[in-house]
Amino acid sequence: MSNDVVNPAPEDPNLTERVEGIDHNGHSLNTLVPVEQPLTLYLNSQEIVTVMTIGDYPEELALGFFLNQNMLTSEDVIVGTDFDSDLGVIVVRTERETDYEEKLSKKIRTSGCAQGTSFGDIMENFDCIKLPETKVKTSWLYSLSQKINATPSLYLSAGAIHGSVLCKDNRPLAYMEDVGRHNAVDKIAGHMFKQEIRPEDKILYTTGRLTSEMVLKTVQMGIPILISRSGFTAWGVQLARQANLTLIGRARGKRFVALSGTQRLDFDVNPEEIPAERTEAQRKAGQ
Amino acid sequence: MSNDVVNPAPEDPNLTERVEGIDHNGHSLNTLVPVEQPLTLYLNSQEIVTVMTIGDYPEELALGFFLNQNMLTSEDVIVGTDFDSDLGVIVVRTERETDYEEKLSKKIRTSGCAQGTSFGDIMENFDCIKLPETKVKTSWLYSLSQKINATPSLYLSAGAIHGSVLCKDNRPLAYMEDVGRHNAVDKIAGHMFKQEIRPEDKILYTTGRLTSEMVLKTVQMGIPILISRSGFTAWGVQLARQANLTLIGRARGKRFVALSGTQRLDFDVNPEEIPAERTEAQRKAGQ
Repeated sequence: MSNDVVNPAPEDPNLTERVEGIDHNGHSLNTLVPVEQPLTLYLNSQEIVTVMTIGDYPEELALGFFLNQNMLTSEDVIVGTDFDSDLGVIVVRTERETDYEEKLSKKIRTSGCAQGTSFGDIMENFDCIKLPETKVKTSWLYSLSQKINATPSLYLSAGAIHGSVLCKDNRPLAYMEDVGRHNAVDKIAGHMFKQEIRPEDKILYTTGRLTSEMVLKTVQMGIPILISRSGFTAWGVQLARQANLTLIGRARGKRFVALSGTQRLDFDVNPEEIPAERTEAQRKAGQ
Repeated sequence: MSNDVVNPAPEDPNLTERVEGIDHNGHSLNTLVPVEQPLTLYLNSQEIVTVMTIGDYPEELALGFFLNQNMLTSEDVIVGTDFDSDLGVIVVRTERETDYEEKLSKKIRTSGCAQGTSFGDIMENFDCIKLPETKVKTSWLYSLSQKINATPSLYLSAGAIHGSVLCKDNRPLAYMEDVGRHNAVDKIAGHMFKQEIRPEDKILYTTGRLTSEMVLKTVQMGIPILISRSGFTAWGVQLARQANLTLIGRARGKRFVALSGTQRLDFDVNPEEIPAERTEAQRKAGQ
C-alpha cells in the first residue's frame, strides 16, 4: 500500500480549457472550464459503457466502474490494461473469463444522474455486506471539510465538477474529481483496488447528493461512513439504514445532518467552536 | 396550447418523505427529503430504460426522454400511454411502429450524470437544427432568476433536487423538478410536446451544469437560449457554439458568463442595479 496522498491536478493543461466569452457587463473575458470527453470501457473483449470524463485516471475509473457494477470482484486478477487516449478507449483484461452479454442485454439500467447501474446485480450482494462499527469523531468531519475545501482543485479553478475524497480519521488520502459524481467515486474504488487499500476504517466524502446509487456504491466498496455537503433522497436514506451505513449530509460549516448509522458518531467537539466556512470555499450551486 | 403555468408541488405528500435523524449538536430532528423511485419506460412493446425519479409527470418524462433520444419526433402520433404507479412502469404507444432493438444493442451510452444518451443518433440530427436569432434581454435573465428562486419548490422544502424551467421573456411557464437534472429537462420536453408549445421564442433555465448532454437536449428541443446557475464543460461550450445556442452560466445575483451565442444578448439593464441574491434563495452546493 502506497502512503502517497492523491490530490487534484488543476495545473494539468489536459484537464481544462480556456474559453472566450463575455460577462454580465458585456466585457470580454477568458475563463477556465473543465474538459469533458468520452471514454469507452471494455472488459476483456466486451464493450461495456461510454462515460463522459475529464480524462485523468482512466485505469482507476474503469476498474472502479467494473467493481462498483459487480463485474469485477476484489479477488479478480488484472492481467493488463490498455489505454488509447486518441481513441478514448480503455480495455481491462482479467485472468478470469467474463461475460456480461446477457446481463447487459437486460437493459435494466438506471439514471437520474447515473452510469447505468444494474440494480439487480448489486442488490444480490447488498444484503451480504456487513459494515464495521468504526467510530467517526465529529471533529474529523469538520477538519476534513476544511482541508478538502482548501485543497487546490479543478473545482476551485474551473467549476462544474464533482469531487470524491477517501479519508482516514481527519486525513484526506485520495481526492478525485470528475464531471460526473459517480465517476469520481468509481476512481476512488479503482484507486483502492490498485493500492490494496482496506475500506473498514475509511470515510468517503462526496460533493454530490446522497442518492440511492451513491449509497449502493459506498456499501459495495465496504466503506462504513459517507459524508456530503449536499442533501439526501428518501431511497438513499432507506438503503443506508438497511446496510447500516453512516450517512451524513448537508455538512457545511458547523452544521450537518445524520440520517443513518448515527451510533458511529462521537461528538468530541462543540460545534460553536467551528468557524464559519470562508465564502470562497463554499461550493456553488449545482456544481 | 394551455396558458396555465406549471409550478412545483412541494406540498404533494407523494414527492417527499419525513425522516428522523440527528443534527450537529446530537439533537434529534425530523427533516424532509425528496422521494426517489425507479420508473421503467417502454416505447410500444420495447423496454427502453429505468430512470430514478421523484415520480411526478411520468408521461411528460417518458415522452420527453424519447423525444430527446430521437426515438420519437414531434410528428409522431401518440395513441395512448399506460402508467402503472405500483409497478413503476409507463408505456408510450405510437401510431408508427418503432424498433430500437438494434440501436439499444449498440450499448453506446454515455454517463457522467447521464441517462444513456445515444450520441450517434442525436448527432445525426444536431447539424441540421437551425436555432432562430431570438433576442434575450439581460433584464429578463435577472427577473427569471429572482422569480424561480422565490417559487415554492421541492428544492426549497427538501433539497437534493434539480430544477428546469421553460420561460418566455421574463416569465417562467413551466418549472419541473427531479432527482436527476436530465429528467427535469426531459419533463419540459414532454410538456412542450403535449401542450404543443413552440420552442423558438423560449428560454430554458436549469439548475444543473452545462455539460454536453444538456446542450444536446436543448438544441434537440429547438430552444435557442440555455441559462444555468452552474458552470460549463469545454465540450458543452463547443457543442453550443456549433449549434449557435446562447449558453449562459454562473448566473447568480448580478453576475453571469456567456460563452456562446452572445449576439442574442441585449444588455438593457445596468447590473449594478440588480440586488444581491437573498441567502435563502441561493441554491446549496451540489444540489
